[in-house]
Amino acid sequence: MAKLAGVSQPAVSRAFNPGAPITKEKRDRILAAARELGYVPNVFASSLSRSSSKIVAVISGNLNNPFYSESLQCFVEQIQRTGRQVLAFTVQEDQNSDDVMMQALRYPVDGVVVTSATVTSSMVKLSEGLGIPVIMYNRRVPDANLPSVLCDNEGGAAALARRMHAAGARKFLVLRGDPAGSTSMARVQGFRDALKKLKGAQVEEIDGQSSYAGAYRATVSRFDKPLADWPDAIFGVNDIMAIGCADALRGHFGKKIPDDIMLAGFDGIREAQREPYHLATVRQPIERMVTETLELLDAAKSDEGAPAALRVIQGDMIPGVTIQSRED
Amino acid sequence: MAKLAGVSQPAVSRAFNPGAPITKEKRDRILAAARELGYVPNVFASSLSRSSSKIVAVISGNLNNPFYSESLQCFVEQIQRTGRQVLAFTVQEDQNSDDVMMQALRYPVDGVVVTSATVTSSMVKLSEGLGIPVIMYNRRVPDANLPSVLCDNEGGAAALARRMHAAGARKFLVLRGDPAGSTSMARVQGFRDALKKLKGAQVEEIDGQSSYAGAYRATVSRFDKPLADWPDAIFGVNDIMAIGCADALRGHFGKKIPDDIMLAGFDGIREAQREPYHLATVRQPIERMVTETLELLDAAKSDEGAPAALRVIQGDMIPGVTIQSRED
Repeated sequence: MAKLAGVSQPAVSRAFNPGAPITKEKRDRILAAARELGYVPNVFASSLSRSSSKIVAVISGNLNNPFYSESLQCFVEQIQRTGRQVLAFTVQEDQNSDDVMMQALRYPVDGVVVTSATVTSSMVKLSEGLGIPVIMYNRRVPDANLPSVLCDNEGGAAALARRMHAAGARKFLVLRGDPAGSTSMARVQGFRDALKKLKGAQVEEIDGQSSYAGAYRATVSRFDKPLADWPDAIFGVNDIMAIGCADALRGHFGKKIPDDIMLAGFDGIREAQREPYHLATVRQPIERMVTETLELLDAAKSDEGAPAALRVIQGDMIPGVTIQSRED
Repeated sequence: MAKLAGVSQPAVSRAFNPGAPITKEKRDRILAAARELGYVPNVFASSLSRSSSKIVAVISGNLNNPFYSESLQCFVEQIQRTGRQVLAFTVQEDQNSDDVMMQALRYPVDGVVVTSATVTSSMVKLSEGLGIPVIMYNRRVPDANLPSVLCDNEGGAAALARRMHAAGARKFLVLRGDPAGSTSMARVQGFRDALKKLKGAQVEEIDGQSSYAGAYRATVSRFDKPLADWPDAIFGVNDIMAIGCADALRGHFGKKIPDDIMLAGFDGIREAQREPYHLATVRQPIERMVTETLELLDAAKSDEGAPAALRVIQGDMIPGVTIQSRED
């Protein structure tokens, strides 16, 4: 192939590695030669990648939650750009997350990024034994020494609580997600802690199962009775639950948002900023969080033994139209 | 590990292959032994998979279109269930699809599923030379001998055209997607052909760029003028464009759907069936299409030389609330 394209052997390797330095003209010539010969160099045999499989495993939450599909889209784009690829896993509802992790560790991957699911201490031991770094994205495992990239969940939730309280809300309802998930717990905690410091706030919590359908059902079953005691404001700990709740409030009960009830979410997914919602929320800066996750992954091999890095990134407050001052 | 768990060597291999027959009790014992030893058998070294890498590449459209994220979620679930994994690729807007295909073919994959992007004849030759089967999902490449699984795009679009015509619509607007994409073209064609056989229908076509934002912009720029000539009915060739159009019609122009303008889409994504939309559409049976795609993939190696299979699957008409008879 080098001969046909009139280039050196290392240039051929570089042409097939998107991150590597090579002129566009030379690269095009080499790719044309590859087409003509019907041949591409195998990743595992390539001299540039002898110590690396060029595969990063990403264990994702259910892609029907747009936060996870936006995140995966972003991981694929950024990882592809460096000449590596994503081995994609999702954790099914009926599945033990250890099983998924174990499947990922059976491949010669350069690392594992976990965006959903918990990682048990035996899996941490296993990955250490295999020399495969594990990085947590949007998650934290309290007692494990794993590098993590997080949005400031407590801070963001606290800011939303203060905004709704300042607008006049006193009776709050929280739609929480996975009770074992660090992200949902941190947001509920941040929200409650902020309200404790303010006057006259009451908080009730119900389980929205982290999903649109779960939040819709939870909202209907909570309020579908005569003389329901409606709250002033509802906080969905993620946007997809806030949207499910909004559709139930309006479609099932004919309530107006924010006139009858204020509403806020967390994540900043696209859907929640569209015409029917314009949801007040905190946006997780996905692009930047993915970039920092991949930085931690690249640093992990050389940092062995050091305490794991924790990067906490501020979210962006999106004002939206679903929080509005009460004029009495 | 076999000794520690008190089982045979082949039982260990089976324990790590979700598809393989083994009792739950035996499997749990083996996984416990793996945790204790801090070891998992490498996929490529495993005796069951010597002739296979247990990796299927999936080249997907942008995951911010829910049709692609729902499809990928389904591919990951079904492929994971058989003890294989998904190497995920997406085609970026500025990217040549040949480049993505070439990257996929550099891995020792068992096959490539293409859900977006076209496949050129030189890539077909390359994959044949490497003995890697390529299967098209929701796409067709006219002159290539590639197995394909498709929804009946013409038939579904024709049925929507007939429903809107029967409801009284005569002036139609079509929001089309990628003009080079076989799926968009087939739907536009099916829609137009059906209307040709009916009385008094006019059709105009504009480019909605296959996306929410593209359709929103196209709708605004087409009608943002005095005395705009509004159509009776709009067909978005995919649901995400129909949703973008609905938000523009209602949010920007204050139009009512279906009272002022009827609307239909295609795909059957979850978002389009929620409270604000309940869109009339044709649902692609994703689960079944994915199953049949994987059947064609498994059959591809033994079918070499035979004419490529084409499976066309009927979509399901979702009535929705966005098509309604005109009472004059």
